Amino acid sequence: MSERRPVTALETPVPVIDLDRVERNLARMQAYADEHRLALRPHIKTHKLPRFAQAQVALGAVGITCQKLGEAEVMADAGLDDILISYPLIGPDKARRLAALARRVTMRAAIDNPLALETVALAGQEAGRPIGVLVEFDSGLKRTGVTSVAEALALIAQVKVADGLRFDGLMTYPSSAATADFVRAVRDAGIALPVVSGGGTPGAAHAHEIAGVTEMRVGTYIYNDRTLVELGAARLEDCAFLVHATVVSRPTETRAILDSGSKTLSSDLVPRGAAAGYGLLVDYPDAVIERLSEEHGMVDLGRCERKPALGERVRILPNHVCVVTNLHDAVAVSRDGMVEGIWPVAARGLTR
Amino acid sequence: MSERRPVTALETPVPVIDLDRVERNLARMQAYADEHRLALRPHIKTHKLPRFAQAQVALGAVGITCQKLGEAEVMADAGLDDILISYPLIGPDKARRLAALARRVTMRAAIDNPLALETVALAGQEAGRPIGVLVEFDSGLKRTGVTSVAEALALIAQVKVADGLRFDGLMTYPSSAATADFVRAVRDAGIALPVVSGGGTPGAAHAHEIAGVTEMRVGTYIYNDRTLVELGAARLEDCAFLVHATVVSRPTETRAILDSGSKTLSSDLVPRGAAAGYGLLVDYPDAVIERLSEEHGMVDLGRCERKPALGERVRILPNHVCVVTNLHDAVAVSRDGMVEGIWPVAARGLTR
Repeated sequence: MSERRPVTALETPVPVIDLDRVERNLARMQAYADEHRLALRPHIKTHKLPRFAQAQVALGAVGITCQKLGEAEVMADAGLDDILISYPLIGPDKARRLAALARRVTMRAAIDNPLALETVALAGQEAGRPIGVLVEFDSGLKRTGVTSVAEALALIAQVKVADGLRFDGLMTYPSSAATADFVRAVRDAGIALPVVSGGGTPGAAHAHEIAGVTEMRVGTYIYNDRTLVELGAARLEDCAFLVHATVVSRPTETRAILDSGSKTLSSDLVPRGAAAGYGLLVDYPDAVIERLSEEHGMVDLGRCERKPALGERVRILPNHVCVVTNLHDAVAVSRDGMVEGIWPVAARGLTR
Repeated sequence: MSERRPVTALETPVPVIDLDRVERNLARMQAYADEHRLALRPHIKTHKLPRFAQAQVALGAVGITCQKLGEAEVMADAGLDDILISYPLIGPDKARRLAALARRVTMRAAIDNPLALETVALAGQEAGRPIGVLVEFDSGLKRTGVTSVAEALALIAQVKVADGLRFDGLMTYPSSAATADFVRAVRDAGIALPVVSGGGTPGAAHAHEIAGVTEMRVGTYIYNDRTLVELGAARLEDCAFLVHATVVSRPTETRAILDSGSKTLSSDLVPRGAAAGYGLLVDYPDAVIERLSEEHGMVDLGRCERKPALGERVRILPNHVCVVTNLHDAVAVSRDGMVEGIWPVAARGLTR
């Protein structure tokens, strides 16, 4: 659906994407990866849009990353190939779905435990072709991933003898100083590592400094957000995703109410209190979105010289764009302030 | 879609609703409203399901409350009538949509400012029938609502002379001690108030103690959640909505990773730190869901004697159920542990 009208004609609240900025962000990261001979395998969790995944591959990405099978199913339906599930899959239902995917596209999966190994192996056997496996290790986040080299070696040994699996290498999130040490220790144990997949947009500019990493999994770089700006990993003019909102009430001189609450912006804050409030009003940077209800955003204008009027449209840079994408059934894409289309967020809500 | 299988056969993560508990919760609140001769106008923002709205009306609700027009459109399509939009509507697009609704069902709207008045009046004129208006006042939340009796009186005077509007009374959220004072002051100014609409599940059991309130707008009572339990406004056995999840990784003795992160549970915490973490593991109450990524829930098991195993299914009581509903395209409804159906969350994501 393409509609030639200004973005300011769209009913609010509405997420609006600037295609020129998206294209610059995608090209810049691909150029970085190319320069440093790193494979780029973008994470689609940020946009959940097949067309942007296709654009990433057209620019040179080796494939894509998905967190959940539901995302991968949407992407495979749209013609994407070579999909890494960077997440432990557990149980017969996941095995069946992974097998169905592996019959039609190249699938890879990360594992950090024997049940996930069993699940992926079952899928490879059912599909009749081996599934490439990355063993995930913890580089400091204390999330998933084996926590010792010994565990990694034990799991790798199991992968190598399992029917339906092919050992491809290691994976971690995010890339860190500990990453290089871990990779070296595994290599020193005599294990060949065709792939070492690292991740994270915040540290992406330093990915080439982590010895051993061969692949970058990054997601947020396509849009950027307020957290990345606060971290110094993006500039405001690199931010491609804004929520357009309306001031629906002005109960006092210093309070404005936006038509955007936690069901529009999420409740995610900028980590470690590096910036106040639930998003940045880019045209009123001294305003603070101090509280959210589900559909209301309460804005403190106490520090603003210039204040938005009742009925005025304002633009919000989200704190964490990946969860905002996931709240909206569709996004408006634009160029030079004109709407180029309304795109359904095809992989939205697919947490299984 | 009805499927006779145990809820434990559903792939995770999945929201599972206990219909027996829903029915008890609905009946209890209606009985309370009937006992105290209060009109009950449930807020559908919590469930966003036409079938539950119909059940609420069948039990005796006078109509329903919606926060946004998109929710009201879904509910009107499903045959619901007498719908209050408890939210300031601003602009010609909202007027057009409100008019279209008012042509087919009875619509009411809350306003707290002249632009919202203008929008609703335009809709009433276009629809050819007046729209009932409640003037919203602030009873202490510092959200929307006029902040003085003088402002309320001025707005009421404008409503009374506006073409396309009918003055129905006052609205506030939540009901509080300040509510009764405000209502009395408006009455003392000689204004008849057919409706005084108060709200909030947390204080619902005391709604009849607020002099002047004639109507209850409550939403969360249908499911209840961890916040209401912590507030003492619900018991654990009244909670009808749990997210079923799977332990997908057990990296250390005291850490479990769930397949449910902020895209499944939201990042909402229990207000004022009254309970730790991003939801309650009902079968492991000493566990703490201490961090969320988008698709990972990091659980600290340090205080648990008994610990969930890798691959185990667990059940999570959400901190704030209204935003969790809004993350899922569908919910499983169940009775006695058996799936009765998978219902699309028809009004999900409709923030406009």
